[in-house]
Amino acid sequence: MIKKSIKYIVLCTFLVLFASLQAQVKPVDLVNPFVDTHNSRWFYFNSASRPFGMVNLSPDTDTDKTWSSGYLYGSDSIRCFSHVHAWQLAGVAVMPTTGKFKGHEGMDVYQSSFSHEGEIAKPGYHKVFLEDYGISVELTSSTRVGFHRYKFPKSKNKSIIFDTGARLAHGPTTFSKVWKVSNTEIAGVQVLKKTGRRPKDTPVYFVAKLNKPFDSFKGWVNNNMLKVKTDTIQGVNAGAGLFFKNEEASEVLMKVGISYVSVEQARKNLDTEINHWDFDKVVDESLNTWNDWLSKIEIKGGTQKQQVKFYTDLWHALLGRRIISDADGKYTDMTGEQPVIRSVKLDKNGKPLFPHYNFDAWWGSHWSLNILWSMAYPELMDGFCNTMVDMYQNGGLIPRGPSGGNYTFVMIGDPSVSFFATAYNKGIRNYDIEKAYEGLRKNAFVGGSRDHAGYEHNIPAYGGGMQYYVDQGWVPESIKAKGGHKDGASMTLEYAYQDWCLSQLSKALNKEEDYKLFSKRSLNYKNLWNPETKMMHPREIDGSWIKDFKPVVDDFNARGFCESNSAIYTHFVPQDMGGLIELFGGKAVYNDFLNASFKKGKELDFVGEGKNHAASWIDYGNQPGTGMAHVFNYSGAPWLTQKWVRKVKEVYGDTTPYGGYKGDEDQGQMGALGVLMAMGVFELDGGVSVKPYYEITSPLFDEVTIHLNNEYYPGEKFVIKTSNNLSENIYIQSTKLNGSALNNCWFYHDDFAEGGTLEIKLGQQPNKEWGVAIPPPSLNLED
Amino acid sequence: MIKKSIKYIVLCTFLVLFASLQAQVKPVDLVNPFVDTHNSRWFYFNSASRPFGMVNLSPDTDTDKTWSSGYLYGSDSIRCFSHVHAWQLAGVAVMPTTGKFKGHEGMDVYQSSFSHEGEIAKPGYHKVFLEDYGISVELTSSTRVGFHRYKFPKSKNKSIIFDTGARLAHGPTTFSKVWKVSNTEIAGVQVLKKTGRRPKDTPVYFVAKLNKPFDSFKGWVNNNMLKVKTDTIQGVNAGAGLFFKNEEASEVLMKVGISYVSVEQARKNLDTEINHWDFDKVVDESLNTWNDWLSKIEIKGGTQKQQVKFYTDLWHALLGRRIISDADGKYTDMTGEQPVIRSVKLDKNGKPLFPHYNFDAWWGSHWSLNILWSMAYPELMDGFCNTMVDMYQNGGLIPRGPSGGNYTFVMIGDPSVSFFATAYNKGIRNYDIEKAYEGLRKNAFVGGSRDHAGYEHNIPAYGGGMQYYVDQGWVPESIKAKGGHKDGASMTLEYAYQDWCLSQLSKALNKEEDYKLFSKRSLNYKNLWNPETKMMHPREIDGSWIKDFKPVVDDFNARGFCESNSAIYTHFVPQDMGGLIELFGGKAVYNDFLNASFKKGKELDFVGEGKNHAASWIDYGNQPGTGMAHVFNYSGAPWLTQKWVRKVKEVYGDTTPYGGYKGDEDQGQMGALGVLMAMGVFELDGGVSVKPYYEITSPLFDEVTIHLNNEYYPGEKFVIKTSNNLSENIYIQSTKLNGSALNNCWFYHDDFAEGGTLEIKLGQQPNKEWGVAIPPPSLNLED
Repeated sequence: MIKKSIKYIVLCTFLVLFASLQAQVKPVDLVNPFVDTHNSRWFYFNSASRPFGMVNLSPDTDTDKTWSSGYLYGSDSIRCFSHVHAWQLAGVAVMPTTGKFKGHEGMDVYQSSFSHEGEIAKPGYHKVFLEDYGISVELTSSTRVGFHRYKFPKSKNKSIIFDTGARLAHGPTTFSKVWKVSNTEIAGVQVLKKTGRRPKDTPVYFVAKLNKPFDSFKGWVNNNMLKVKTDTIQGVNAGAGLFFKNEEASEVLMKVGISYVSVEQARKNLDTEINHWDFDKVVDESLNTWNDWLSKIEIKGGTQKQQVKFYTDLWHALLGRRIISDADGKYTDMTGEQPVIRSVKLDKNGKPLFPHYNFDAWWGSHWSLNILWSMAYPELMDGFCNTMVDMYQNGGLIPRGPSGGNYTFVMIGDPSVSFFATAYNKGIRNYDIEKAYEGLRKNAFVGGSRDHAGYEHNIPAYGGGMQYYVDQGWVPESIKAKGGHKDGASMTLEYAYQDWCLSQLSKALNKEEDYKLFSKRSLNYKNLWNPETKMMHPREIDGSWIKDFKPVVDDFNARGFCESNSAIYTHFVPQDMGGLIELFGGKAVYNDFLNASFKKGKELDFVGEGKNHAASWIDYGNQPGTGMAHVFNYSGAPWLTQKWVRKVKEVYGDTTPYGGYKGDEDQGQMGALGVLMAMGVFELDGGVSVKPYYEITSPLFDEVTIHLNNEYYPGEKFVIKTSNNLSENIYIQSTKLNGSALNNCWFYHDDFAEGGTLEIKLGQQPNKEWGVAIPPPSLNLED
Repeated sequence: MIKKSIKYIVLCTFLVLFASLQAQVKPVDLVNPFVDTHNSRWFYFNSASRPFGMVNLSPDTDTDKTWSSGYLYGSDSIRCFSHVHAWQLAGVAVMPTTGKFKGHEGMDVYQSSFSHEGEIAKPGYHKVFLEDYGISVELTSSTRVGFHRYKFPKSKNKSIIFDTGARLAHGPTTFSKVWKVSNTEIAGVQVLKKTGRRPKDTPVYFVAKLNKPFDSFKGWVNNNMLKVKTDTIQGVNAGAGLFFKNEEASEVLMKVGISYVSVEQARKNLDTEINHWDFDKVVDESLNTWNDWLSKIEIKGGTQKQQVKFYTDLWHALLGRRIISDADGKYTDMTGEQPVIRSVKLDKNGKPLFPHYNFDAWWGSHWSLNILWSMAYPELMDGFCNTMVDMYQNGGLIPRGPSGGNYTFVMIGDPSVSFFATAYNKGIRNYDIEKAYEGLRKNAFVGGSRDHAGYEHNIPAYGGGMQYYVDQGWVPESIKAKGGHKDGASMTLEYAYQDWCLSQLSKALNKEEDYKLFSKRSLNYKNLWNPETKMMHPREIDGSWIKDFKPVVDDFNARGFCESNSAIYTHFVPQDMGGLIELFGGKAVYNDFLNASFKKGKELDFVGEGKNHAASWIDYGNQPGTGMAHVFNYSGAPWLTQKWVRKVKEVYGDTTPYGGYKGDEDQGQMGALGVLMAMGVFELDGGVSVKPYYEITSPLFDEVTIHLNNEYYPGEKFVIKTSNNLSENIYIQSTKLNGSALNNCWFYHDDFAEGGTLEIKLGQQPNKEWGVAIPPPSLNLED
């Protein structure tokens, strides 16, 4: 009887526990790191990584290129576990093995087959079994330290390969050095050869500590094992192995600290961040950290698949861009003749106020990251603004996508100006705005960063055509200059929007003259409007319209347009949709045209066939087209925004490793866009306006709660409640803001920041009375 | 005035020409080789290759593994152009370069970036530009010869790398040798190391001839260029470069003949197949050859996208499996102790009657290739049957997927028996049927190929559990034996179907006793029916049902099932659907159950999430589930077959490089299934019945014409005409065969072979009167 009771109690306890566990599925549990990983580029896949982590430790199935590399789900072999997966950066490839040592023979030889059976990947953790060696590998990390747990089988030959000379991703390693510090510690440096994008050789320093002594340390140069005993190995193609004699099955723990400053800093990062050997504790900390970040936005309702996609999107939006400063704030500035070690600003306790970041371009982030971060993570925007101001002071230019502590001049224009304008106009201001404004203004004239075409590193740079733009208000095609993406029409349209961003910033800063100047320049988009073709039409240097113009061409880009075409860029006037619609001949004409584009685009799932970005009327596979479904909110047909956002969202719903983003996720940009679409909010102007506001569309979920950061916003939370939310009910019937009827399709950021509730009622048919007023009066350029 | 007239005439001529061109889009023009190529496995992507070609010359972006390798569309670099992309076979990697020679440094170093701009791939042709070297590369081929055209830019250093020691795909190269024959010819051999699947080291021989003399020949061993002058280079990691002094921009043509027999045979293949230097002529011949093959099936109607998918599917169905015999019929038999050079049967003029093939498994081909080939390419079935009979005579077993002239024992069971039974019972009989029957019968008992589990090479083999099957009529789980896929439930179900194939063959051959024996054995599927779980339920060795049974599990395979689960294999009774339906409790119960499975399966696009084949109720991503939508034709609900075939077809409609097959295309199997679904015909029993017949479902196209091979079938063509064919009209209203009403959902192969017309009228609502009779009477097992 007693036994039975105990059993019963145990059972009840279990049931209660189970029920409470069931009820508390955490956001972090809904992230699926495998989504779309068969389409990985080097920095896409992440498992053992913290938010914006310097260390991104994960298995690599492909290491020889930038695209289709890192961890590809469909691949059958793991080549190594490496620590850095960043924009133009890589480093420190490690592989545990058993049997005959093969480190010097290269990854083609020592790679191991693996299967997805028993494999686990979560934010901050990865477990996988190396079939060729019988080793179970687990990985976790802090921000700057990778933590490995290897379970070796019984074997006379156990070793850990440090392939410091390996080619990883973007290019070869020019030199590496690795040495034994003690029988539980090694250190080294791997110098990544410069690339066409990252213009200088870049060292990655590391220190590795083990919980068990290794018995010998041997290395190779040029595929030959060194026969003399040495504690230091160096060369162009060099590496080392740590060897363990003990034949028994055993567990080895290893921590690897990374720094871009020095070996000493790598060791300091290691000792500061993980000063113990409790692997599981670091896994828990990783999951908890991620859960804290992800829980800033909570959701209720929707399908399990939609929830998984939502948090996977959000996780990506907080992941791809990378911290490069050390735990103590030191970072290497590579913008000058020589590397200079600098420090980020420290607080009164000597702790860094913000880290220093490297990242791929902001190009297009006004329709994704800028909006999401400024709502739920305003502190992040401060951090990135500080990084950019620091780079301006170090190197003279505000960057558009720095790597290796230097400019890369990736893509075109100066997208950082919208980032700053959004931040500043939403009250995110913990950086030197005067310096920032100085740098952003510089970019808007000859000699600024707009003047650099894609990857155009020479100075002076001409590829961005700023002399043309300043003189005549548009950039022609076929400018003679170095660099890529010399697409005059795209440049003109982006510059005009960026001028408007400057106008909104200068207005907020009471710079009246600049406000007038840039407001006027923001109308430059009209210089490309061809009333004959009724589209944005590129122009030759002599001013004539280019011949053989087609809105859509079966290629990667159409002449004049950066990875896109006129069908898409014609709508790129986020600063003045009213003006564009007038050029078209009014709302009715415009809506017919854009709606027809969406109908055609739907045939190709809203992307160009096979990344042919110029081949479609709609392209959600690349940045320039990612605002288009939201445009109808500005043309008096908000129900079409509601419809097409849903349709686009549907084709981005895949949560398998073989789909999900239909193109380049681009370090959180597509993830952030997915989150915004699911929440039912957007800002076509990027939130840049002096008085920012959000446009409304139909959310996917019954309830979305955004917890506000009280260091920035006075409210506690902003809740979006959706009623009558069935899959066929995609149209907004009515809305209420804090209990009062709201008939606009938009509301001000001030109301958001105060906290409150937006209620949205959905239905199966459009309510064509709702939301037809054009948002908002403040957009008036003549103001 | 005159000018104007001429202009007008020119315009008219052009218009007429254009119109006629428009009207004559050839099948070959509709093939898109890039479809789904971001998911390539080594043998998937093909450009310069003839039907079943020994040579498959194409760019490789990935060379270090079997999966995610070959040409991946999303990759950014070309590592080499290699000549063999086959099941467990690879070989002869070539790369033209300019600038400092880097051949000895390996592919990671000498690879070149490329873009898809200007890239062209067609059946038999590929053009791509190597950006790092400024070289335009064009490729074409005959069956056994690769033909290269390189346009070098002005450069002092031009070279062609022969990386004969490179690792390609499945494993390392153990040894290679390459030598200079003259200053326009080199020859060599590359020995591919054995793998777990292909059990012996396998040599690939080649001869390369150039149209221009090279100025020097230098090579390397182990990453070091040889400093002594030598005309022969050999070693484990060896290769050579051909160097050209002439600085001017120039064009170099090169032909590379391949053989698995000897260098002499490679030279003979080269000289026999391409005895000239007219590159464009070979391109034309390739396109014409492909067009002839593809034109055996002509279509009218459907969208452009559907047409592209159709011919891309058909092209795949004629492509993945490879000829390994030489132009004169010689091939290497590797089944014995020593390699033996043999010859296929020759005709009276000394020409080979059929080539000898290597190929991945027939596993599942009864629902794809067997049906399609027997309709439109009966001569192919004769060829493959001869290959299998030859292997039986050489090595004692009819194979299920030979590579390197030897058995691989890929997958399970003896799927070749359905291939033979379909061929023989449709009158395709140009091989020694008595020998074939002997071999197939051997496979059905202890010691035959069924007894080999996946890749179980040891003899005797036990993994296939034939002793259990023969003794008790089912195979248990957890048999102690080597080899993979030891899944007793799958084996039992497949063996029972294969027994029925033998019964149908023995009946045709008047082997009455065998007919009775195998008919009885074909009911063995009932031994796995568990009336409690009401599904096919695996059993332990002691006969008990396995515990913790679930129809669907979130994994690659469920216990008992080969890359699948019980939800799918429960329906694997193509030989006796009536019996299965009775076990379920009748048609109504069965239809409800299967229809519910499809509704659940639709949520996951009819495949397991991320190749988790056991995770879904429906899995069109792998062979065991590829007949399921057609089952309703046997349960009195043909409209559900019509509905679900269309729904499945929709999710397989992608024609981008990022989708199309949702899994492994498997050397034409998914392509063939796509063709059958589009044509609206199928054979759930694989066409094995003594009197074969086709089941009907709704075609995609308005008209499908299958041109019949008169050496086999008396008719000229069989036409399937579909009226009222709108996208929403997916249901069959009525059918006519040769003008007379046909109320069955099936018709006999004899009627097909006679030629004729099947008319199908479609509508938006099911006609539940049509086609409800169960096909066909001849299925009766008691007969």
